[in-house]
Amino acid sequence: MRVASRDLLPRVLKGEVAAIARLLSRAEAADPECRETLGEIYARAGKSHVIGITGVPGSGKSTMVAVLGRRLREAGHKVGIIAIDPSSPYSGGSIMGDRIRMSELAGDEGVYIRSMATRGALGGMARATLDSVDILDVAGYDYIVIETVGVGQDEVEIASASHTTLVVSAPGLGDEIQAIKAGILEIADVHVVSKSDRPDARGTISDLKQMLALGLSIDASAAWRPPVVATSSLKGEGFEELVAALEKHKAFLEASEAGRARSRKIAEFRMLKTAEDLLRIRFHERSAGLVRGMADRLVSREISPYAAGEQLIEAMGARNP
Amino acid sequence: MRVASRDLLPRVLKGEVAAIARLLSRAEAADPECRETLGEIYARAGKSHVIGITGVPGSGKSTMVAVLGRRLREAGHKVGIIAIDPSSPYSGGSIMGDRIRMSELAGDEGVYIRSMATRGALGGMARATLDSVDILDVAGYDYIVIETVGVGQDEVEIASASHTTLVVSAPGLGDEIQAIKAGILEIADVHVVSKSDRPDARGTISDLKQMLALGLSIDASAAWRPPVVATSSLKGEGFEELVAALEKHKAFLEASEAGRARSRKIAEFRMLKTAEDLLRIRFHERSAGLVRGMADRLVSREISPYAAGEQLIEAMGARNP
Repeated sequence: MRVASRDLLPRVLKGEVAAIARLLSRAEAADPECRETLGEIYARAGKSHVIGITGVPGSGKSTMVAVLGRRLREAGHKVGIIAIDPSSPYSGGSIMGDRIRMSELAGDEGVYIRSMATRGALGGMARATLDSVDILDVAGYDYIVIETVGVGQDEVEIASASHTTLVVSAPGLGDEIQAIKAGILEIADVHVVSKSDRPDARGTISDLKQMLALGLSIDASAAWRPPVVATSSLKGEGFEELVAALEKHKAFLEASEAGRARSRKIAEFRMLKTAEDLLRIRFHERSAGLVRGMADRLVSREISPYAAGEQLIEAMGARNP
Repeated sequence: MRVASRDLLPRVLKGEVAAIARLLSRAEAADPECRETLGEIYARAGKSHVIGITGVPGSGKSTMVAVLGRRLREAGHKVGIIAIDPSSPYSGGSIMGDRIRMSELAGDEGVYIRSMATRGALGGMARATLDSVDILDVAGYDYIVIETVGVGQDEVEIASASHTTLVVSAPGLGDEIQAIKAGILEIADVHVVSKSDRPDARGTISDLKQMLALGLSIDASAAWRPPVVATSSLKGEGFEELVAALEKHKAFLEASEAGRARSRKIAEFRMLKTAEDLLRIRFHERSAGLVRGMADRLVSREISPYAAGEQLIEAMGARNP
């Protein structure tokens, strides 16, 4: 028998893994039955520190996240990891070899790992991720890591919708990868250069620092200057510095107006993404009637995309379907 | 003095490059002044064949697109290329070295190349891209190539919103890249394995064919079986086959119900994306009043994200601001 979401809630609050997993699945699927419960969870949430991690393919993010998770764990924290995985949506299953490296964390009750498929045409990845963060938050996880594998616009936005955003670079990547990297550097609160055991890491670090110095001259008044931390997952080096940088940024947010501004920025992002997702869900629910007919008129070029978009927002605004 | 968009239209229809560039900029910026003109353009558009191209970083997409563009050109077609470039939004300027390789095309009047920045928090990339396709369509470009550099959800969706979608693979890429590739194979109408001059290309081609054969056993009834074409941009090999595959898919769409279904799928995607974009634009316009107050209530956890999203759709549905 299916347990109602509101009956799962007390068990989630106690940190019961099975209840957490079920509610996460419902949140991911945007199940309307769990919406009220997610509202209650949202009202209670807000204790965890959320770390968004992104970086180009090949930067060794997943391994770095696994080592970082272990270090936070050793410091006595409970750690939740939400990995957003682009390989799942179209092919139907995650095949990330990197996930396997996390298995050493998987036996530990203080660590919860969730691999979330990006949701293809149905969208809603941002909404689902932030709902999942709330669930892990009220379940007692002190640090919640959002790791995005892709570096598309959506993934970068989600990594930014966190308290502390880490951008991972690595030595020895090709030109095209470097160009993508340049596109995401600005969202970093902390820069990580992984694979620091490689002989060419020193050059990568000094190149990065130089790039950042150029940026600083534009915004010299910034209250927070993103530090560059070098880590080696292979040798386990640099993680004390990384944890210290995370703690420092956390303290900075708590002590300054920046924390409040950050929370508002996340709230605005979340509000918009949830509205977009509700629009999308209703769009698919109603595609048999209204939407289908409107799409036909668009195909035959009787109306323009803007007119169709306007009508859609207006029609979807009606609360009762 | 600023020329009105409706006065640019006759010049766009004549294929005047300066007028095209100005209207593209306005469409990208979602300038409300050009919306009516875009509606007129939409009503006239629909002649071009749109090719969406995506592939993992390092697959040699941009070089392949440049060679393909030249081949289509040699066959007497006018070619428009819209390159969606993730390096631009945050760093403020495209630094793709690959763009340079396109410069040999740039002197040709029959080729129009537009590099479009992904638009960060403002979103709207899909809407802007499809509006741009219309502009190039009515300006007389026979083939319009949408090339996405990133492989995030948004980019993959945009590459799919085309008549023929090409997915580019290449030999010798790492595990993480391969996993990302697996996530996008299903959207392909034509598979391209680039860098076929490399000795390890043969293995990549047979691996890909094997993967596709596994997929085919599930959907044996499919009317179109995506072919695998090997190309070498370096040696200029395989492009006759590639152009033939494109023409074959074009003919398939024209001769079957699949073409109509495809058009409706693109129209539905476009309608939803335009609605989302209008929602987003109004959201930012009104952030001083309604939205700001609602975000504050969200920060203080007085309302839930779902309730806020509902109110947002309802409020934005009002046509007059």
